[in-house]
Amino acid sequence: MTSRPYDDLPTVRYEGPDSRNPLAYRWYDADRVVLGKTLAEHLRPAVCYWHTFCWGGQDPFALGADVFRRPWSDGDPLAAAQLKLDNAFDVFRVLGLPFWCFHDRDVAPEGATLRASNAMLDAVLERAARKMQDSGVRLLWGTANLFSHPRYMAGAATNPDPEVYAYAAAQVKHALEWTQRLDGANYVLWGGREGYETLLNTDLRRELDQYGRFLAAVVEHKHKIGFRGTILIEPKPQEPTKHQYDYDTATVHGFLQRYGLEGEVKVNLEVNHATLAGHSFEHEVATAAALGLLGSIDANRGDEQLGWDTDQFPNNHVQLVPAMLEIIRHGGLGQGGMNFDAKVRRQSIELTDVLIAHVGGVDTLARAFLCAAALHESGDLEHPRDERYAGWDGALGQAILGGSGLDALADRVHAQDLSPQPRSGRQELLEQLVNRHV
Amino acid sequence: MTSRPYDDLPTVRYEGPDSRNPLAYRWYDADRVVLGKTLAEHLRPAVCYWHTFCWGGQDPFALGADVFRRPWSDGDPLAAAQLKLDNAFDVFRVLGLPFWCFHDRDVAPEGATLRASNAMLDAVLERAARKMQDSGVRLLWGTANLFSHPRYMAGAATNPDPEVYAYAAAQVKHALEWTQRLDGANYVLWGGREGYETLLNTDLRRELDQYGRFLAAVVEHKHKIGFRGTILIEPKPQEPTKHQYDYDTATVHGFLQRYGLEGEVKVNLEVNHATLAGHSFEHEVATAAALGLLGSIDANRGDEQLGWDTDQFPNNHVQLVPAMLEIIRHGGLGQGGMNFDAKVRRQSIELTDVLIAHVGGVDTLARAFLCAAALHESGDLEHPRDERYAGWDGALGQAILGGSGLDALADRVHAQDLSPQPRSGRQELLEQLVNRHV
Amino acid sequence: MTSRPYDDLPTVRYEGPDSRNPLAYRWYDADRVVLGKTLAEHLRPAVCYWHTFCWGGQDPFALGADVFRRPWSDGDPLAAAQLKLDNAFDVFRVLGLPFWCFHDRDVAPEGATLRASNAMLDAVLERAARKMQDSGVRLLWGTANLFSHPRYMAGAATNPDPEVYAYAAAQVKHALEWTQRLDGANYVLWGGREGYETLLNTDLRRELDQYGRFLAAVVEHKHKIGFRGTILIEPKPQEPTKHQYDYDTATVHGFLQRYGLEGEVKVNLEVNHATLAGHSFEHEVATAAALGLLGSIDANRGDEQLGWDTDQFPNNHVQLVPAMLEIIRHGGLGQGGMNFDAKVRRQSIELTDVLIAHVGGVDTLARAFLCAAALHESGDLEHPRDERYAGWDGALGQAILGGSGLDALADRVHAQDLSPQPRSGRQELLEQLVNRHV
Amino acid sequence: MTSRPYDDLPTVRYEGPDSRNPLAYRWYDADRVVLGKTLAEHLRPAVCYWHTFCWGGQDPFALGADVFRRPWSDGDPLAAAQLKLDNAFDVFRVLGLPFWCFHDRDVAPEGATLRASNAMLDAVLERAARKMQDSGVRLLWGTANLFSHPRYMAGAATNPDPEVYAYAAAQVKHALEWTQRLDGANYVLWGGREGYETLLNTDLRRELDQYGRFLAAVVEHKHKIGFRGTILIEPKPQEPTKHQYDYDTATVHGFLQRYGLEGEVKVNLEVNHATLAGHSFEHEVATAAALGLLGSIDANRGDEQLGWDTDQFPNNHVQLVPAMLEIIRHGGLGQGGMNFDAKVRRQSIELTDVLIAHVGGVDTLARAFLCAAALHESGDLEHPRDERYAGWDGALGQAILGGSGLDALADRVHAQDLSPQPRSGRQELLEQLVNRHV
Ligand SMILES: [Co+2]
Ligand SMILES: [Co+2]
Ligand SMILES: [Co+2]
Ligand SMILES: [Co+2]
Ligand SMILES: [Co+2]
Ligand SMILES: [Co+2]
Ligand SMILES: [Co+2]
Ligand SMILES: [Co+2]
Repeated sequence: MTSRPYDDLPTVRYEGPDSRNPLAYRWYDADRVVLGKTLAEHLRPAVCYWHTFCWGGQDPFALGADVFRRPWSDGDPLAAAQLKLDNAFDVFRVLGLPFWCFHDRDVAPEGATLRASNAMLDAVLERAARKMQDSGVRLLWGTANLFSHPRYMAGAATNPDPEVYAYAAAQVKHALEWTQRLDGANYVLWGGREGYETLLNTDLRRELDQYGRFLAAVVEHKHKIGFRGTILIEPKPQEPTKHQYDYDTATVHGFLQRYGLEGEVKVNLEVNHATLAGHSFEHEVATAAALGLLGSIDANRGDEQLGWDTDQFPNNHVQLVPAMLEIIRHGGLGQGGMNFDAKVRRQSIELTDVLIAHVGGVDTLARAFLCAAALHESGDLEHPRDERYAGWDGALGQAILGGSGLDALADRVHAQDLSPQPRSGRQELLEQLVNRHV
Repeated sequence: MTSRPYDDLPTVRYEGPDSRNPLAYRWYDADRVVLGKTLAEHLRPAVCYWHTFCWGGQDPFALGADVFRRPWSDGDPLAAAQLKLDNAFDVFRVLGLPFWCFHDRDVAPEGATLRASNAMLDAVLERAARKMQDSGVRLLWGTANLFSHPRYMAGAATNPDPEVYAYAAAQVKHALEWTQRLDGANYVLWGGREGYETLLNTDLRRELDQYGRFLAAVVEHKHKIGFRGTILIEPKPQEPTKHQYDYDTATVHGFLQRYGLEGEVKVNLEVNHATLAGHSFEHEVATAAALGLLGSIDANRGDEQLGWDTDQFPNNHVQLVPAMLEIIRHGGLGQGGMNFDAKVRRQSIELTDVLIAHVGGVDTLARAFLCAAALHESGDLEHPRDERYAGWDGALGQAILGGSGLDALADRVHAQDLSPQPRSGRQELLEQLVNRHV
Repeated sequence: MTSRPYDDLPTVRYEGPDSRNPLAYRWYDADRVVLGKTLAEHLRPAVCYWHTFCWGGQDPFALGADVFRRPWSDGDPLAAAQLKLDNAFDVFRVLGLPFWCFHDRDVAPEGATLRASNAMLDAVLERAARKMQDSGVRLLWGTANLFSHPRYMAGAATNPDPEVYAYAAAQVKHALEWTQRLDGANYVLWGGREGYETLLNTDLRRELDQYGRFLAAVVEHKHKIGFRGTILIEPKPQEPTKHQYDYDTATVHGFLQRYGLEGEVKVNLEVNHATLAGHSFEHEVATAAALGLLGSIDANRGDEQLGWDTDQFPNNHVQLVPAMLEIIRHGGLGQGGMNFDAKVRRQSIELTDVLIAHVGGVDTLARAFLCAAALHESGDLEHPRDERYAGWDGALGQAILGGSGLDALADRVHAQDLSPQPRSGRQELLEQLVNRHV
Repeated sequence: MTSRPYDDLPTVRYEGPDSRNPLAYRWYDADRVVLGKTLAEHLRPAVCYWHTFCWGGQDPFALGADVFRRPWSDGDPLAAAQLKLDNAFDVFRVLGLPFWCFHDRDVAPEGATLRASNAMLDAVLERAARKMQDSGVRLLWGTANLFSHPRYMAGAATNPDPEVYAYAAAQVKHALEWTQRLDGANYVLWGGREGYETLLNTDLRRELDQYGRFLAAVVEHKHKIGFRGTILIEPKPQEPTKHQYDYDTATVHGFLQRYGLEGEVKVNLEVNHATLAGHSFEHEVATAAALGLLGSIDANRGDEQLGWDTDQFPNNHVQLVPAMLEIIRHGGLGQGGMNFDAKVRRQSIELTDVLIAHVGGVDTLARAFLCAAALHESGDLEHPRDERYAGWDGALGQAILGGSGLDALADRVHAQDLSPQPRSGRQELLEQLVNRHV
C-alpha cells in the first residue's frame, strides 16, 4: 500500500440527483443559495479525525485487534501521527468539505508526561496549521480527550482525586489554546467520564460542584486568552459510564444555571446521544433552541434496535427534516456546524468506504436541509402553528402571561361559565404536508 | 355484595417475620424506633385513592369495560362517590396506614360546569374532613386531575387555548384550597398533559413559558392563602403524551431555575417514572437530594420488560435499599412521605387482593428501610466513600474549588510532573457490603 | 351532525406528486403497473374497522371517556352498529381502497350469551355482505376478539379454565365461518391474551400445549368447511400481557413446528409489533420470507421513543423501503395485503382527520413500494449480494452444504494453509445505492 | 509484583451469614444438602477464563489501552499464557469452586496458521490437564472463539465466504476434541458473529442454512468421537452484530427443529443476554425448561439502564429466586452448571477485586437457590398453581386436549349457555408468599 493512498484521487463534485457516481454529490451543491446563504454556509460540514483516521475497527464487545490496516497504523508513533495528518488533509481535499474537528490525542500520541504529550501535539499541530493555511480547511472545533487514559477511569473533573482534575485542567488549557491558535469556531467539552459507575461509591453533590468549577475555569480561561469561539458541552446519557452528568440538553440547562454559566456555554448535540437519552433528535434541537443553548451538531445516527452509540452515517433524509426545520426556525447554527461524528461499519474495511460514507452522509444532510427549507418557505407548517396559538396573543393569553393569579382566573371561569372545547391537533395532516416536501 | 365489604375486617397488625398471615405485617412495625424516629414517621405511607378506589381494571390497550365490580361501581354518581369514600376510610382503617392522597376528580364526579363539579367535590370532601377527624388519617397530598377530561387533551397550562389554562387555574385553586383545609402536607402538580404529541404543531418555547407562569401562579396562591405544605412536581418522561416537560428531576431543576421557582417547588419522585426516563430510582433520589429538590415519593415499581408505567406494588426490598440509603443520607423526606401510586394487576379482581397488595408493599418498604438504616449505621459504605474523596478536603482540592484557574493548575502539573494513578472503585466489595445488611 | 357525514364526499383520486389537495393521492395510482401488476394488486390496502370506526380516542393511561363524538357513538347498540357499518362503507368508498378487516366484536355488540352475540353479528354481517356486493369492497381478513371481555382476562386458549377455551373456540368458529361466507382472503388469530402476567402462577408448558391444540383445531375446522383463505398468526411481544406466546416470527416458527402446523399457518406482521419485539420491520419480513411464513402486513408505525404500541399511520417512505424490497424479493404477499392497523392520534378528533390519515398512509406505502421496485429492478443491491455469496455456489460451498464434516474440512484447512481474508461489507455504499431510488 | 500473586492466599471458606470477612462465603456452604444434593452439586459454579484472566479492562467505547496490569499481561505470548494458566488455577484453588470454562483463544494465542495456533493451544492445555488432575477442578465447558479474529468479521458459519466456514469448522474440531479430552461436561457454541450488520447485503435464508449445516456437523462429530457432553447454543440477540441468529431460546427452538437438531442441542442461558432480548431471565429458563432445552447457565447480570451486555456479577438474590425456582421445578441443570460469565467493573483494578466479586456472586447464587428451595418445598406457590389449572385435568380439559373440534365445543357452549367467570390471578399474594422465603 502506498503511504498516501488518497493522494491522487479527484475531488468529489456535485453531479446532481441523477448521478450514478458513488464519489459524486447528488444533493450537496455547496454554492447553491437557499434561504439567503449557500448550502456550505448553512451546513458547515466537518470531518471528524477520531473515527475517520484513528479508529481501527475494533469490536467493542470482543477481545481483538484492529481490523483496519492503514498506512499510518504502525511505526514510530509520532511519525505515524504526521503521516496520518497528511492523509487526513488528503481526505479533506478529496471530499471538499470546509471543516475538521479533533481531540488532542487523535492528533498526537500520549507521552510519558504531559510535557512530552504537549510537545508531540505541538509538532503535529504546527504541521496542521500549515496545511490548514494551504488548503483553506478550517477547524470547527477542538477538544481534549479526557476519557481514554486510565487516569481518567473515574472521571476527569469529577474524579475523586483532585490531581486528576488538575491534570485535566492542564490538558484542556493546551487544547483550548491550540484551538484558538487554529482559529477554531468552537471548543467542545465532552464528559465521557464525567459521571458515575455506581452510586454506592459516589458523592453526587461533590462531583457536580467539581464539574461546575471546571467548566467555569474553562470559561474564565477562554476570556483570559481572548478566544472568540463558543464553549460547547456535548450531552450524552451514559456509555462508557453508567450515568453521565451531561445527560441531555435539559440536564445541561439546569447545570449551567446552577453554576452561573448560562450565556457562556451552549450544547453540541449528537443525534445518537439524543436517541440514547430517550429523545428524538428534533426534540433535543428544539429544546436547545428554546433555551438559547443551540450550538453545534454531531450528525450521525444510531441503530433503532441497538442500545449503544453506533455512530453511523446518516442515511434517511426524511427522518432529519424535523430537526433541520427547528434549526432553520432558530435562524441557523451560527458559528456551529455539522460534524460527522460517525464511523464506517467495522466490515467497511476499504479506504474508499470512508469516502463513500462521507459522500452519502453529506448528501443526506443536504437533501434534508433543502426539504426543510422548502417546507419552511411554503408556510405549510408555520401558518397552522401560529394560528393554533393565536389565543395567547389575545387579551386572555396576555393577561395570563402578564400575571393573572388563580383567583382572577377562577372568577373569569365562573363568570363566563367557560367550557373550552378541544380542537384537532391535525397531526396526520401536518405529516402529510411535510411529505409534500421530501 | 354488601355495600361496605371491608367494614368488619380486623385491622392489619405487625406479627413479625415468621407470620404466615397474608393480612399481617412482617416488617412494618409502625412504632419501632430506628435512627431516632418510628418507622411510621420515616415512611409516612399513604394509600392513593385513584388506583385503589377508582380504577376499574380496564385493559389500557383494548376496547373494553371495567373488570372490577365494586359496591360503588354503579348508581347515582354522587351517591357512589360518597359510598366510595366510606369504603376508602374502611380500607385506611384496616391497613392502619397514616396517610391518603387524592385528585379532585377521584373523589367526586365531573359536573356540567366547574361550579357544579366544585359543589360535588365540596359535598364529598366535607364528609372526608369528618372522617379524617374521626380516624386520625391525614392527607399526604392533594392534586387536581388536569388530564382526563377532553378539554385537557392538548395540555392544561400548556394548551394552545388560554381558556383551558384559565379553567385549569380555577380547578387548581379549588383543589389547593381544599388541600389546605384538610391540612395536607403537600400539594402535587402532575403534568400528565403538559407536553407534546408532535413537534410539528408545537411551539416549545411558548409552552414552557405558559407552564412556568402557571407554576408561579400556584406558588403565589399558596403564599396568598397561607398554605404551609410543599408544592411538588411529579416528573414523568412521557405517557400519555409523546414528551412531557417535567421529564425527570434534572429537567425540572432547569425549569425551576429558569422561572425563578427554585426554593419554592420540590419533586414527588415515582419509581416507575424514574425507570421510564432511563434512570434508576436511586439516581433520581440522589439527584433530587443533591439539588435540594427531594420532596416526596410515589412508591411503586415498573416491569423491567415493559415500556409503560405499570404502577406495580414494590416487592423487591433489595432493589430499594440504595434509594432508601439516599433518603437516609439526606436526612429523610421531611413533610414528604411514601405514597403507593400502585395498582393491583388487572387479574387481581378480589377485594382482598387490594389489601394484600398494600400489606406486601408496606412490608417491602419497611424492610428496605430497615436494611438501609443498618447499612448506614454500620458505616460500611459511608467510611470508604468519605475516604475516596478525601483529597478534595486537602489543599489541592480546596484550591481548585476556591477558584484555581487553568494556568495555575497547568503550572502545578508541570512543576510536579503530576501523574495521578487510578485507584480501584471497589464496586463489587461495596455491593457485597450492602448484601450483609439485606 | 348528520348521521352519514361521509356520504356526500367525493372519492379520493390520484392527482400526482404536485397535488396540494390533502384528499388526493400523490403516489397511489391504483392502476399503475409495476413489476407486472397494478399497485392495487401489489399493496392490497385495507381499512381496519376497529381503530377507524370503534376506537373512541380514549387515553390508554388515564381514566376518562371517549373524546371522539361520532354519529354512531350513542343509542341502541345494534342500531348504532348498523349505522357504523353504513359509515364504514361510506369511508371505503371515499378512500377507494379495495379491502377491509374486522373483529367480530367491532361489527356488532356483545350480547348476554354467545347465541345473542352471534345473532347480532349475523344481523350486521348480512348487511355487510350486501354492501360488499354492491361496492366491490372485499374482505382481507376477519378475526375474533378474544381479548376485550373480562372472561378472557387470563387468556382465551391459554386460560387456566377450559370453559374459556371452549367459549373462545365457539366464537372463532362463528367468525371463521363468516369470514368464509364473506370470501375473506385470510383469517387472523391475534393472541392478545395468549401470554402471562406473572410466571409465579403460570404453567408455561400447559399453556403452550393448550395454544397448540387450539390452533390445530382452527386449522382442522378450516379444512372441514373448505375455507380457502390462509390462517395467520399476528406476532406481538407483550401488551396487554407481560409476555405473549406469539412474541415474534421466530417464536411462531418454533411453535408451529412443535405442533405440526408448519405449512398451515403464516404470519400477519405488524410494523409496531416488530419494533416492540426489538426487531426492525424488515427483519421480521425477511425472517418470515426465509422461513416460508410471510402472510400479510399490518402497516403502521410506532414511535421510536415510546415503549408501547402506538399504531400510527406510516409517514416515512424511506424507512419502509427495505421491508418492501424483502416483499418484492419474496414474490409479493400472495393473498395477503397491507392493512392499516393504525389509528389517528387522540387529538385528531375531526372526521376528516381519519380520511387524511389514510391518504397519507396509502401514499407512504405506494411511494415506498415504487422506490423498492425501482431499486430491485436496477440490480443495484441484487448484483452485489449475489456476488458476495458466490463462493457458496462453488465447489467448497457445495461440499459443505452437501455434508462435509469437521474432519474433512480441517484436513483441507491444514492442507491448503487456508487463511481467508475479510472483504468489505460495503454497507455505506449500499445505503447510498438505496438512496438513489428514494 | 510477584508473578503468582494469588499463590499464598488462603482458600475462601464458608463462615456463615454473620461473617464480615469479604473473602469468606456467607451463604455458599458447598457441602450443605438441600433437596437431596449438596449446594455444590446443584449450582456447579464455574469460573470463566476470559473475563477473569484475559480481559484488560478496556473501555469498549473509547480508544485506549488495557487498564489492568497483571503479571501475565506482557512478555512472550506463549510464556504469558502458561503463567496466566498458573494464576488461573491459583484463583480456582483460592475460590474453591469446582469448575472452569474457556475459549480456545483465551488459553493460548493465535498463531500465523491454524496449525501454529493448535500447537500453542496443545502446549497450554497439556499443562491444564495436569493441573486439573492435581487440583480436582473440572471443565464445565469448552468453546472456540469464532468472533475475535478479523476473518470472522462477517460471521463464521454464516460468512459469505465458505473458506471461513471451513476454518471455523477446523477450529471447532480442535476445541471440541480438547473438551472431550479434558472431560468437559458440555461444549458451547456462541454465535457472536452469526448474524448480520445490514439486511442490504445479507441473504438470510442462505445464512440460516449454513448455520444449520454447521451445527449438524458439530453434532455429527460429537457422536463420531464419542463425546458424551451436551452441545449447547448460547442465545444472544445482538452485539456485536446488529442481529444474531440465536436471538433467544424461542428462536433457537425453531432453528433446531428446522435443521433436525432437536434432542441434540440445548441452550446455555445468560442472564444479561435474556434481558437484552427483552425477556426476564426466568422467562428464558422457563421457556427452555418447557421446550426441553435447558442446558446450562451463564450467571451474571446486566444494568437495567444500559443497553449492552455489561456482564456484571449477580448481587440481588431476590431477583434470581424465580429463575432458581424454574430450575428446581425442572429437576435441576443435569450436567449443566452456573458459569460466572461476569467481569469486574473496569475501575476494579486490584487483584483482590476479582476474588471479592466471585465470592459475592457465588453467595448471591447460593442464597437465591436456598430461598427458592425453601419456597418450592413449602408448596406456597406450587399448590395454588396446580389448583389454578385443575380444570384441565377434568373432563372438559381432557376432551379439548384429546382433540375436540370447534363444532363440538360450540355445541357445548350453546347447550350449556356457558359463561365462564374470571378468577383472581392473585399475583400480589404470590409475590408476598415468595417474600416469606427471601
Ligand atoms: Co459526538
Ligand atoms: Co456518538
Ligand atoms: Co405511575
Ligand atoms: Co405517581
Ligand atoms: Co395488528
Ligand atoms: Co398494533
Ligand atoms: Co455468556
Ligand atoms: Co454477556
